[in-house]
Amino acid sequence: MRDQKGFTVWLTGLSGSGKTAIAKPLEGALRDRGLKVERLDGDIVRQSLTSDLGFTKEDRDQNIKRVTFVAKLLTRNGVAVICSFISPYRERRAETRKEIEEAGAFVEVFVECPLEVCAQRDVKGLYDLAFAGKIDNFTGVSDPYEAPEKPEIVCHTAEETVEESVARVLRYLEERGFSPTG
Amino acid sequence: MRDQKGFTVWLTGLSGSGKTAIAKPLEGALRDRGLKVERLDGDIVRQSLTSDLGFTKEDRDQNIKRVTFVAKLLTRNGVAVICSFISPYRERRAETRKEIEEAGAFVEVFVECPLEVCAQRDVKGLYDLAFAGKIDNFTGVSDPYEAPEKPEIVCHTAEETVEESVARVLRYLEERGFSPTG
Repeated sequence: MRDQKGFTVWLTGLSGSGKTAIAKPLEGALRDRGLKVERLDGDIVRQSLTSDLGFTKEDRDQNIKRVTFVAKLLTRNGVAVICSFISPYRERRAETRKEIEEAGAFVEVFVECPLEVCAQRDVKGLYDLAFAGKIDNFTGVSDPYEAPEKPEIVCHTAEETVEESVARVLRYLEERGFSPTG
Repeated sequence: MRDQKGFTVWLTGLSGSGKTAIAKPLEGALRDRGLKVERLDGDIVRQSLTSDLGFTKEDRDQNIKRVTFVAKLLTRNGVAVICSFISPYRERRAETRKEIEEAGAFVEVFVECPLEVCAQRDVKGLYDLAFAGKIDNFTGVSDPYEAPEKPEIVCHTAEETVEESVARVLRYLEERGFSPTG
């Protein structure tokens, strides 16, 4: 492949909706196709970039602002960036889109899953605490989640398998010439 | 050129020593040679990455920690990164070196210039304020600058022109195969 076009796949959705479950195999698939890939999520950036931030609206926006800067720089240098962050606020996501589109393509993926299903999965054991009022500013429970209005892709993770979601994203990237076919 | 090897040129030195004066033409020269280049300095990252940070040791270290994360990601994706930061603390620079060497090459450039000369230049009008006690934690005046012990390159900016300094860095990069010759 010649010089790779940079893009950012931005996975947004509730905690437990399956963002990371999609992001990891997507990362592997793009790497297997010979692309340069960086995956960013809360666990990856917390140590180095966002250790001072909590979960207020201001802190969440700051978090996304810093990540956006990193994704922008990588994107404009031809890297395939996969970001998975709850990123609940529409306005902040719109700013992210604007910044990244100056650098390359921005592919917003709405990882849609009903709150009840996320809470039932409760991968990190946080919903129980949130419903018990022991965690403040918990998205979907005590803090809003503003669903994307025009995402490039929607994955309904309560109704489809991870493989199907990943395949949907890959197909989109292939069709636009961002990824070679597998 | 085939796949570009990533590296970070890290310019450290007092305020007014000439870090940015070297970084900007270096950026241009590397770009002219067909490399992917990103230049990072305080002005560039303040808005997006470090707006919350001041000049205490803790804040300076945090600043460098965040920049290092970004430089590391760019470096391991084949970008030529040019960082110019006072970065006064040896231990923090050593950590930066360690992190970036896992991603590619780290080229520490000590931009050496006597304090008196920097203060005389006083590009930003800050030394006057610092000597008058109106700025706290000012490197070289009220805060230490720990000079590198084994930098890859030293530029003596009080004794050589910017062109000479830039040429010295370029020669180093050419000799190691990081940059094609101009």
